[in-house]
Amino acid sequence: MPQACKIYFSTFIQALALVIFSFSAPAHAQEDVIWNLPDPENTVYLELQEGTVVIELNPMFAPKTVKHFKQLIDDQFYRGQSFYRVIDGFVAQAGDESDLGDIHTVASITAEFEIDWPMKPKDKEEARAWQATPWMPVQKEDLFAPYTGFIDGFAAARDRKKGGKAWLTHCPGTIAMARNSSADSGSTDFYIVIGQAPRYLDRNMSIFGRVVWGMDVVQRIKRGPTLKNGIIEEDMGRSWIKGMRLASSVEKNQQLDVWIADTNSKGFKKMLKKRRNRSDNFFHHQPPKVLDICQVPVPVRLEKSNQ
Amino acid sequence: MPQACKIYFSTFIQALALVIFSFSAPAHAQEDVIWNLPDPENTVYLELQEGTVVIELNPMFAPKTVKHFKQLIDDQFYRGQSFYRVIDGFVAQAGDESDLGDIHTVASITAEFEIDWPMKPKDKEEARAWQATPWMPVQKEDLFAPYTGFIDGFAAARDRKKGGKAWLTHCPGTIAMARNSSADSGSTDFYIVIGQAPRYLDRNMSIFGRVVWGMDVVQRIKRGPTLKNGIIEEDMGRSWIKGMRLASSVEKNQQLDVWIADTNSKGFKKMLKKRRNRSDNFFHHQPPKVLDICQVPVPVRLEKSNQ
Repeated sequence: MPQACKIYFSTFIQALALVIFSFSAPAHAQEDVIWNLPDPENTVYLELQEGTVVIELNPMFAPKTVKHFKQLIDDQFYRGQSFYRVIDGFVAQAGDESDLGDIHTVASITAEFEIDWPMKPKDKEEARAWQATPWMPVQKEDLFAPYTGFIDGFAAARDRKKGGKAWLTHCPGTIAMARNSSADSGSTDFYIVIGQAPRYLDRNMSIFGRVVWGMDVVQRIKRGPTLKNGIIEEDMGRSWIKGMRLASSVEKNQQLDVWIADTNSKGFKKMLKKRRNRSDNFFHHQPPKVLDICQVPVPVRLEKSNQ
Repeated sequence: MPQACKIYFSTFIQALALVIFSFSAPAHAQEDVIWNLPDPENTVYLELQEGTVVIELNPMFAPKTVKHFKQLIDDQFYRGQSFYRVIDGFVAQAGDESDLGDIHTVASITAEFEIDWPMKPKDKEEARAWQATPWMPVQKEDLFAPYTGFIDGFAAARDRKKGGKAWLTHCPGTIAMARNSSADSGSTDFYIVIGQAPRYLDRNMSIFGRVVWGMDVVQRIKRGPTLKNGIIEEDMGRSWIKGMRLASSVEKNQQLDVWIADTNSKGFKKMLKKRRNRSDNFFHHQPPKVLDICQVPVPVRLEKSNQ
């Protein structure tokens, strides 16, 4: 379970809530944000020449994929692998390139595209076992889904149909398994979204994590030629993975404490409201009162280990 | 006027139309794309340590801003300026930092947030002067606008209200003037969108151009601390502008020929249709038949000068 810590950290939230143009700071500070540390058992340090990327895994939506990925990390499988297929504005794909051919050294895994999640309990029996979901609503009738929202920091979407489904959405920083046309063909190759959210891939890929720190590092990953579908032929032209480690396998004082704003907290809810209703005088044309789930930053701050 | 050139270049379009996962190529090639070179009088080479970025200016939507910007380029104003405010996933802002304070060495310019553009001629008289617009429709009832589409390669939106308005949309690669709360306060500082489209800024900023080549270079621009609103204090921490030149001021054999797919062409229209109706067997869940205007790449290819 994540550790929780309530911190009065108004300046930071202001900085994130503001657009970068110089207009005055919001009058009231948001002092009721709760900050969580992700579970070290589901936090990954991806080490590149370009820097360190911190990834949070999501066993709720992709239990099998997360287990599989953690096993590969444990086996040091990704050490010395590279980002071999990188298209600017779209995705950076890494792994042993098994996605390109038919030879798989590692067994493939079952697809985890969405989960069952009724919007409401359907009867009294279900109501008894019903738990308050960590769903923080963001937008109804989003272009790509009937409902969008956050589930413990992850951008997600829901639909009432077929008894109720929920899925993680493709946003910048989203991590999913690559595959060929077969749904269950994912094996070792994964991709990180590095451009405008390719939401048409939602419910079609096993999203199993997201970048919580170091997207600037990810953006420095070497690009491939669009003409060749992003594939980088030359070794020197690629970004290489020096290693991948689970935070829990790293000594406490070496861990990176990435504090993530609790998307279920009152403070975050206020931030959403403010973002939706932009009332300051910077705006001469009132923006539509809508939110793109992939354009709502979840505040994060890095501290040295607290141990 | 842009030069036009019809090229049978099916492979490239296929590569762009495909997602990068290995599923089979579309059965038919798109051979009716027209490729244009942007007007050298409205093409800018932005030279950074990180590489060269090619910008296309848009005098149709922002005639005053474009004129102003071209004058600044002519004066070599941006040489030695830096990207002083950079927030990953949002924007990279450069200039003389006048946006931060009240001192302006260069006069400020009038806002150019949107233009009049009726959807249809309102009467017979207007119909007589009516010209076929270069509007290529993309999406009705987009989350942020009633209509989105392309206007000569630029992502744009329209609204019937107030007699009909059109504006350029904030997408990755969009370039606009920074300003403070006054609409007419833009002066020298500009920003490039580097993350998920901040569409709430639409109709509130003077968008005057877009990156047509080198977004990978832009993504390597050094980031600032989010905590400090992206402002980079130390010189060494910033990306510096070595120079900015208008393509027309560069010798013909030194020019970069950036061929851009004509968004009014039949081939582009077909690409849109295909992108909206994803029918190949890679997709196990049919994606909603919608398009995010900022997630439709306009194909571009770079060639050596044809002279």
